[in-house]
Amino acid sequence: MLLIKEIGTDALFALQRVLEGEELERARAFYRHCADGDLAVCVAQTDVKGDRGKGPSAQADPDLYLRIVDQNADGIVVRGAKVHTSVSMNANEMIVLPTRTMGPDDAEYAVSFAVPLDTEGLGLYVSSYAAGERNAFEFPVSSRYKMVETLTVFDDVFVPWDRVFMCRDHEKAGPLALTFVEYHRFTAVSYKLPLLDALVGAAGEIAQMNGIMKASHVREKLTWLITYAETVRALTEMAALRCRTGAHGIAYPDPMTTNMAKYTFASRYHEALEHVQDLAGGLLVTGPGGEDWENPEIRAVLEKYFRAASPADVRLRMLHLISDLTARDLGGYHAVLAVHAEGSIEAEKLQIFRSYDPTAAMAYARRLAGIG
Amino acid sequence: MLLIKEIGTDALFALQRVLEGEELERARAFYRHCADGDLAVCVAQTDVKGDRGKGPSAQADPDLYLRIVDQNADGIVVRGAKVHTSVSMNANEMIVLPTRTMGPDDAEYAVSFAVPLDTEGLGLYVSSYAAGERNAFEFPVSSRYKMVETLTVFDDVFVPWDRVFMCRDHEKAGPLALTFVEYHRFTAVSYKLPLLDALVGAAGEIAQMNGIMKASHVREKLTWLITYAETVRALTEMAALRCRTGAHGIAYPDPMTTNMAKYTFASRYHEALEHVQDLAGGLLVTGPGGEDWENPEIRAVLEKYFRAASPADVRLRMLHLISDLTARDLGGYHAVLAVHAEGSIEAEKLQIFRSYDPTAAMAYARRLAGIG
Amino acid sequence: MLLIKEIGTDALFALQRVLEGEELERARAFYRHCADGDLAVCVAQTDVKGDRGKGPSAQADPDLYLRIVDQNADGIVVRGAKVHTSVSMNANEMIVLPTRTMGPDDAEYAVSFAVPLDTEGLGLYVSSYAAGERNAFEFPVSSRYKMVETLTVFDDVFVPWDRVFMCRDHEKAGPLALTFVEYHRFTAVSYKLPLLDALVGAAGEIAQMNGIMKASHVREKLTWLITYAETVRALTEMAALRCRTGAHGIAYPDPMTTNMAKYTFASRYHEALEHVQDLAGGLLVTGPGGEDWENPEIRAVLEKYFRAASPADVRLRMLHLISDLTARDLGGYHAVLAVHAEGSIEAEKLQIFRSYDPTAAMAYARRLAGIG
Amino acid sequence: MLLIKEIGTDALFALQRVLEGEELERARAFYRHCADGDLAVCVAQTDVKGDRGKGPSAQADPDLYLRIVDQNADGIVVRGAKVHTSVSMNANEMIVLPTRTMGPDDAEYAVSFAVPLDTEGLGLYVSSYAAGERNAFEFPVSSRYKMVETLTVFDDVFVPWDRVFMCRDHEKAGPLALTFVEYHRFTAVSYKLPLLDALVGAAGEIAQMNGIMKASHVREKLTWLITYAETVRALTEMAALRCRTGAHGIAYPDPMTTNMAKYTFASRYHEALEHVQDLAGGLLVTGPGGEDWENPEIRAVLEKYFRAASPADVRLRMLHLISDLTARDLGGYHAVLAVHAEGSIEAEKLQIFRSYDPTAAMAYARRLAGIG
Repeated sequence: MLLIKEIGTDALFALQRVLEGEELERARAFYRHCADGDLAVCVAQTDVKGDRGKGPSAQADPDLYLRIVDQNADGIVVRGAKVHTSVSMNANEMIVLPTRTMGPDDAEYAVSFAVPLDTEGLGLYVSSYAAGERNAFEFPVSSRYKMVETLTVFDDVFVPWDRVFMCRDHEKAGPLALTFVEYHRFTAVSYKLPLLDALVGAAGEIAQMNGIMKASHVREKLTWLITYAETVRALTEMAALRCRTGAHGIAYPDPMTTNMAKYTFASRYHEALEHVQDLAGGLLVTGPGGEDWENPEIRAVLEKYFRAASPADVRLRMLHLISDLTARDLGGYHAVLAVHAEGSIEAEKLQIFRSYDPTAAMAYARRLAGIG
Repeated sequence: MLLIKEIGTDALFALQRVLEGEELERARAFYRHCADGDLAVCVAQTDVKGDRGKGPSAQADPDLYLRIVDQNADGIVVRGAKVHTSVSMNANEMIVLPTRTMGPDDAEYAVSFAVPLDTEGLGLYVSSYAAGERNAFEFPVSSRYKMVETLTVFDDVFVPWDRVFMCRDHEKAGPLALTFVEYHRFTAVSYKLPLLDALVGAAGEIAQMNGIMKASHVREKLTWLITYAETVRALTEMAALRCRTGAHGIAYPDPMTTNMAKYTFASRYHEALEHVQDLAGGLLVTGPGGEDWENPEIRAVLEKYFRAASPADVRLRMLHLISDLTARDLGGYHAVLAVHAEGSIEAEKLQIFRSYDPTAAMAYARRLAGIG
Repeated sequence: MLLIKEIGTDALFALQRVLEGEELERARAFYRHCADGDLAVCVAQTDVKGDRGKGPSAQADPDLYLRIVDQNADGIVVRGAKVHTSVSMNANEMIVLPTRTMGPDDAEYAVSFAVPLDTEGLGLYVSSYAAGERNAFEFPVSSRYKMVETLTVFDDVFVPWDRVFMCRDHEKAGPLALTFVEYHRFTAVSYKLPLLDALVGAAGEIAQMNGIMKASHVREKLTWLITYAETVRALTEMAALRCRTGAHGIAYPDPMTTNMAKYTFASRYHEALEHVQDLAGGLLVTGPGGEDWENPEIRAVLEKYFRAASPADVRLRMLHLISDLTARDLGGYHAVLAVHAEGSIEAEKLQIFRSYDPTAAMAYARRLAGIG
Repeated sequence: MLLIKEIGTDALFALQRVLEGEELERARAFYRHCADGDLAVCVAQTDVKGDRGKGPSAQADPDLYLRIVDQNADGIVVRGAKVHTSVSMNANEMIVLPTRTMGPDDAEYAVSFAVPLDTEGLGLYVSSYAAGERNAFEFPVSSRYKMVETLTVFDDVFVPWDRVFMCRDHEKAGPLALTFVEYHRFTAVSYKLPLLDALVGAAGEIAQMNGIMKASHVREKLTWLITYAETVRALTEMAALRCRTGAHGIAYPDPMTTNMAKYTFASRYHEALEHVQDLAGGLLVTGPGGEDWENPEIRAVLEKYFRAASPADVRLRMLHLISDLTARDLGGYHAVLAVHAEGSIEAEKLQIFRSYDPTAAMAYARRLAGIG
């Protein structure tokens, strides 16, 4: 379960770069604990947030952002809930991070810590999205793999001090949130590359199987898909090649290039789906199901009528792969993740703007304009 | 069941505009038969097509386009299969149309007729797509409505002469196919308007419920959605206002404007999905399901934590509507239909190009260039 | 000089719709004066504006928006400057309108009036853009036509009361500004249609002359251009068909549809230039000039080597038309006007958002979601 | 004049990678000749081409592609013409390359050689585009720099054998043409980066000077421009980092990445112009000229009324820079070059498609689909 560790390591790196003093020591100790035990670590960051037009302390219910409700010599007590917590069902430990910049009024919301998943008061409410058994003919991917997200509720959960990484330090809430995202966005766009390869490859396969490879619009769409996938790959690799060393000697990928990679991935994903669906054809949503395929009598009919430039068998399987990836709930899952996961499209644009240094370009423009 | 009649009337109009002589009389008689009986009429047009790079008579299996295999004094016998046949399960009669232009070698494929659905040898193989029971909380639309498509197999079906509208008249195959599409594309883009209104309305609702209405990027996306939906509406209305009268006094919407409406709808649909998903948030694919909602104890937790600028109840229902329309199989169904149904995006572009009269614009350019 | 009257009539209609009482009578009298005298009327609206981040009364120099500096029994005295005043050089009368919504502090800036062009203190500073003689071979359009804009300075200009339409009525400044734009944006997009036809026609001509008409990418680009021009035309016609009657019985085109037409025109204009340039080829900027063409010896060389699927003569003339329209200063003029004239792209989006009535769509979404 | 050498070196590298045997030796000798003499070397590649729908030997006039018309013991004689020959006016030597793949019938057109610019029979017909004196206030860049292109006519030019690199070797014509472009496209996109920086920098400067930096649409447009410029830069750098070593030990940048960089540059350039013009405002085409600015009395008026968040002086100079770069003939020149120079947008797409290796992606898709 590599993915779990990747999310966890993103948070572990961020904690060790942003924290100082005793908190840093706690983070380092927790890091060793995870490494030594080969533990799966998930991360809960996004608060439920309530009314998005208001900050943590201005909500109708103060629990709409996770907060410290009590504190004593042994530790803190927290209440609230996080959404979109990936793979929490499969993890040993959960790291909790603040979701955004906090002001002085939001001090009780500036909190970060780690707890084992079996902690008292910690509740996981699993999303029903894409639940249920599926047959492998119709759902070649989603019948085998499923990522699970939870609403993660902290019902007055106690956290001992050695697991508390941030307590009311509102000035560090934003930096910690952003530093985690710096790593996590790079992790995310890296693990999206196989998804893009699957779309490009499936598009090429189905174009050949349908016998349309020579049509100019088909080549146009394949070229678009190739350019999309390979631009994301090149930007991702470049983000790594341009990595820098941050506080406490911890390296990080170049933020501007990382965000450009993620933004390019996110902002063209739906267009990619359109092109793949275009090449595949309407059978994506009108094709035959697994039960019919299992019936020998019906299968003979399907085999006769669904052959194209390839036999019906491989063509239907490729169509169902594309349907699974683009036109059913797994497809919708990836489409929504493209827009929202690891930061929204708007967040990525904001980070590109902020991490770009305009000094040289503006000075060059002034020079060309003959200004001072 | 209005939709069934709309598909049927598109074909009935096309037959009565393109046919001549005895065939025209048969079509008119069939039209009166349907009208008098208030019959639901479906249409089977798209052949399974086999290798798209080859024409009907060049396929490995001659049955990959529907064809006449026998003929006698009483009628004809046809064999082959049509895909994507909508609402055939709910119809009384099925009109069969050729799918494309035919050459002299394809004469046996130039065939059009009508049969009752209970005709011997006619087999309907229902698609499994989006099958199964759903709860109304998670699937507010798809739990109630489902359009069914079939693979429609003609296993040596006999059709009496008074139901045969075209028999080996290969020169009329293309005109009949295109004339049907002229009506059908207009019908299609007309009935898509409520879907676009649902997307615009749901986007506006969820933006308010999330409390993000004042953010500039939110207004930008809502404006995009409005412009998209209203441009499609304006073009659709204009196609009707620019209608003309064709052969045998039968009116038809302006082809260029119809195709522009359909193309505009089709080519921006996926971007519309992206914007609606962007405004809604990641809960589209990580939100709670109907069973949890039914449990009073869990519902209390969900109500506490999913309230935003509106109570959790209405917000979750709106989120599930958007999930149903954009991120699950109903959403995938509409997305694929946008690209493929009633003619592909490429077909629409081709018809815009063909139906545009460049004479005036080219003469104007020559005049401006000072040429002759 | 029809254009001048169109700008003038846009303002005359707006004044007669927005004003009341004595001011309305003055506007009506001025309207009759212009009609009776068949006068050319220009409009000065856009103030120089200074720092765009500040309102009129917050500028470092109070004259950066036109304002009333004195007033007596005979009339008012105004000071300030307007930019982008089209065809002021060719007009008999100039109508001055406020440029934006004004607050109570901006009362002295809420002013509208009319003056003859030869009024004392009125100064016109003509833009140098695209000035100079041009030969007709290289510049087939811009050698013959030129629209002139001025910086229009009011150096304590006196305006008698019967020419004053608005004086410190800050609440009407916004409505008058917007009402003028409602007409003017419709006028503008209407007179852009020949420009779009010229682009479509020239693209078709040069594609034929270059011998590339059968290439699929060429048809793709021509189809794009046709769809662009014809969508703008359809929306413009629909804005007129959906016209309504406003205050004082004065009709106006539908604002939402007008703004969609203008926005569609404006936001795709640069892409249109790209496609036309793509079809034309690099000779747009490396081709021979008029002097070489006039030289018989050189012309023989040019005629030999610039023939394509047409003789060199007509092809070079068509190329120079396209260069004039897309790649030289006339082309730049139209490109910048597309983005800024008669309201910016942002202003058009804002008006689409404001003029759209979301009630029905949002109620429909709520009904589908099963909400009350 | 670094640019001249860059074009020349692109050709010198290509010749030394593609040629073999005696021709290779000649190319190497010519390379040393250029290096030793520090010579400026231009390249003539694009034939006038005549009817683009026909190949070299099918044209009405056989001279519409450059060809060998005679040959003897001393060398060859060539006739024909090349267009778009950059900086030929400033070069010492000209390398001539074939423009495309040739078939067996086109052998006489498969020719490559080098000649000094003062060779008898070689005629340069300079384009008139953007000719003439300009004042530096209005045209800060184009008043100082001008790249000149020529129609380059070979009127039976003799070339001695030691300068002939390819003679009737039709199979090598295509490889040589493409290999040159491989280098030249990389050179081209590399030297475009300062142009993109100038656009980004000028956009940032004018946004500040206009006082609009805080508007969300302004940040949106700046972010778009940054992402555009920096994606091109990242892809260009990556093309170099992924370089390979070809025949005869000569390195070359990765073709797919090079073409993606160039395509990204080319296909979004017009949208970049739109955004820069949007941020600058209509003064780009209605602003004051240099002569008015030189007049102290008029300048006082202009200084009063054109100040914004910065003094009028720097703002007008920045506006004129942007006008020069985007809205006048220099701007048109760069826009047309973006689409056509060093290969058209279509050529770039074709090379992306051809240089992409789909093996891994297609195998991955098959594996996911459960196929073999």
